[in-house]
Amino acid sequence: MDGAWQPYLAQHEDRFDRELMEFLAIPSVSTDPERRQDVRRAQEWVRRRLETAGLQDARILETPGHPLVYASWLGAPGRPTVLIYGHADVQPPEPLDLWLSPPFEPQVRDGRVYARGASDMKGNLLAAIAACEARLATEGRLPVNVKFLCEAEEEVGSPSLPAVLAAERDLLAADLAVSADSGQAGEDQPMIVTGLRGLAGLEVSVRTARVDLHSGLAGGIAPNAVHVLVDLLASLRDRSGRIVVEGFHDGVLPLSDEEREEIGRIPDDTPALLAAAGIAEPAGDPDFSPRERNWVRPTLEVNGIGGGYQGEGVKTVIPCEARAKITCRLVPEQSPAQVRLALERHLRRHAPAGVELTLAALPGEGSPYLLPAAHPGQAAAARTLEAIYGKTPYQYRLGASVPITASLKDILGVDTVAFGFSLFDEGMHAPNEFVRLSSLRRGREAFCRLLGELAAYSKTAGEG
Amino acid sequence: MDGAWQPYLAQHEDRFDRELMEFLAIPSVSTDPERRQDVRRAQEWVRRRLETAGLQDARILETPGHPLVYASWLGAPGRPTVLIYGHADVQPPEPLDLWLSPPFEPQVRDGRVYARGASDMKGNLLAAIAACEARLATEGRLPVNVKFLCEAEEEVGSPSLPAVLAAERDLLAADLAVSADSGQAGEDQPMIVTGLRGLAGLEVSVRTARVDLHSGLAGGIAPNAVHVLVDLLASLRDRSGRIVVEGFHDGVLPLSDEEREEIGRIPDDTPALLAAAGIAEPAGDPDFSPRERNWVRPTLEVNGIGGGYQGEGVKTVIPCEARAKITCRLVPEQSPAQVRLALERHLRRHAPAGVELTLAALPGEGSPYLLPAAHPGQAAAARTLEAIYGKTPYQYRLGASVPITASLKDILGVDTVAFGFSLFDEGMHAPNEFVRLSSLRRGREAFCRLLGELAAYSKTAGEG
Repeated sequence: MDGAWQPYLAQHEDRFDRELMEFLAIPSVSTDPERRQDVRRAQEWVRRRLETAGLQDARILETPGHPLVYASWLGAPGRPTVLIYGHADVQPPEPLDLWLSPPFEPQVRDGRVYARGASDMKGNLLAAIAACEARLATEGRLPVNVKFLCEAEEEVGSPSLPAVLAAERDLLAADLAVSADSGQAGEDQPMIVTGLRGLAGLEVSVRTARVDLHSGLAGGIAPNAVHVLVDLLASLRDRSGRIVVEGFHDGVLPLSDEEREEIGRIPDDTPALLAAAGIAEPAGDPDFSPRERNWVRPTLEVNGIGGGYQGEGVKTVIPCEARAKITCRLVPEQSPAQVRLALERHLRRHAPAGVELTLAALPGEGSPYLLPAAHPGQAAAARTLEAIYGKTPYQYRLGASVPITASLKDILGVDTVAFGFSLFDEGMHAPNEFVRLSSLRRGREAFCRLLGELAAYSKTAGEG
Repeated sequence: MDGAWQPYLAQHEDRFDRELMEFLAIPSVSTDPERRQDVRRAQEWVRRRLETAGLQDARILETPGHPLVYASWLGAPGRPTVLIYGHADVQPPEPLDLWLSPPFEPQVRDGRVYARGASDMKGNLLAAIAACEARLATEGRLPVNVKFLCEAEEEVGSPSLPAVLAAERDLLAADLAVSADSGQAGEDQPMIVTGLRGLAGLEVSVRTARVDLHSGLAGGIAPNAVHVLVDLLASLRDRSGRIVVEGFHDGVLPLSDEEREEIGRIPDDTPALLAAAGIAEPAGDPDFSPRERNWVRPTLEVNGIGGGYQGEGVKTVIPCEARAKITCRLVPEQSPAQVRLALERHLRRHAPAGVELTLAALPGEGSPYLLPAAHPGQAAAARTLEAIYGKTPYQYRLGASVPITASLKDILGVDTVAFGFSLFDEGMHAPNEFVRLSSLRRGREAFCRLLGELAAYSKTAGEG
């Protein structure tokens, strides 16, 4: 399946890297209202890049939030249509003081580009676009019909996406989706993610009085909102780390012996991941292995907490208000609403009398996703990776959430194959995020090959 | 014991009120480094006011922190020397948006002055000074020798005071101290505080990893600093609100039947206090009555907590760091060091393996204080209040802390009688703090009378 696209990729490598640096310099932080124009600028940049790659009909799709970008090449009638998904937005870069170089001034050190969004996922997005460019430039056509959909709200839970998918059902119709927002197991070990966790979130506010009170005058009688919140949050898990919220685990598919075996076969790099983050002891439900907890079990994390006096020194107040943000990673067949309601019931039942409890769903909820077993798109991706790495890819579910996969299935009826080249150690969502330039070289080649593999794809057929 | 000071006080009432407004306009927030010059300005103001009142030797005593003010009138050889204590600093005014008028633009509404520091304790301080002025202006002398000591670090725990007391032992030598930093039980009910709680404080920081982690990638295996902190804080009390820290209650004097009875005799205004603060249900140790919990039992409050993402929306991080501030109100014979060490032991014992726990004493520690039973200074104060209110004052210990009382006893060997005119509903340390102008009128008269009552005071004699 080699072709003229191979030397083309090699010749234009420097330009591809320069383009990445240019793209990474745009601070497209979707959660930050002050970056609104930067997010749009990133999408305009993507639109132009799709155009210069030879894609057609490249355009902005407006939403009430951040805009999407669409482009297509539909010159292969009779062949399957592949929807390639990516996102141009990035996580906030804070805490800034931990970055060795500024997050939006990309810097190359030892073959790695350091910048917010390098690994998640501007590098992967450009790899897919460059692959199309190489095929179009050298062959004048693509092996399949391609539609690109690039959103800019992935890091805030894709709130505008479902409405756009529903409104543009015809424009976005496809036989298969390929999400470039994914990664590999290691530099020498390919993997294919077959499932992703969903997300549900709840903001909890506790109010115990109208105002903060003086701990000398009211101490011993006034309820303390921090105490109430702390007790509520502690009640969500037992001392071993098991989640004990009634109804939380409803619908969780039991882990089959086969799945446990497949997970057990994959070398456990959990200790290395933990050590790299400076973690001494893993946490979590002791009834499951770290890998199982990390990939196929639901989680419940308090992402933030605040209440009372957080400044320098002492203020002897009894706080009247405290709040926390909780998000849960969900696995098939949990639903965001079910999990959120179970949490709400638990918190209301455990709240002491007389306390005002305010519960509000957090944005970004998404269903978990599981690719049907022996899916032909999966098989095409596996052949591609095997050709490049010379190794059979691991196939497993992953802990992260990419809400679009569930939306594509529910709204467009399309399954999604995950196909990206980030690695676990690249500091996604953390300071000093980076991507390996060698991974992106591989990624460009892999996308070229995958388009070829998918030429014979059929939703109903077995391996093509 | 009436005198020309009575009409004098009445004639100069408007000026006294204007002076209070002027003093309250100085934002002497001792905890705020940006208010450093304002705190000094307040003390300069006090120094001048003592001078215009006729006190002598009025001067600033410098410290590494905020300065103190000293002044004296020592023209009564053979008579006792009374050290009158007050403070010129105030609590931070935040949250500002809850104030109906700006905290440092004092406003009179319905006979009350609204401003930060009005009740705690600029009004009481000026009442004591005005009383000396009235006596000196009309009689040319005071019934006793008087020394004023006004500090400006009371709201941050008086860190500089012990060294000044030790260094200026001769200058400050006295037979009895009178702290104007106190209050009455109600507009028609006098009280004398016989004991004050002490204070111990600890800042707790939990670190579980080098950086915040992605809850999708590391969820289920990475320890969460907020979870650890929440479990630690929840472990300090049982579900009923009893403090279960081993060694915390060591040394607490058992509550005698007499003391319980005396407390039981005093009408319980706890429900009104709670209702005014919008509190539905009281909290605290169910083995004691609300009054007992509020006055004579130790407390443990989390004054503030913070960790992870506290901004708008969602950030799906596993926080690597979380912190809380804890302060305890202590009763005789607990000591700050003992309580802090008990807390530290408890937290270290309950922290999970591999977690980095940082514990640091908070500034402002102070010992609890209990005036000896049947103290003659107490008796003089009781006679004074009875004359003014026509009622026997309640005599009881109070929940608040005024660290100077323990320091005066330990360093100068002097007992302190609390003698102030604030009321519990005046929003000390809260928004919309106010003081009743009628309370201060009474306070000026009461201080004039107390000076007369103390003329016959002897540390060893019974009632004089």
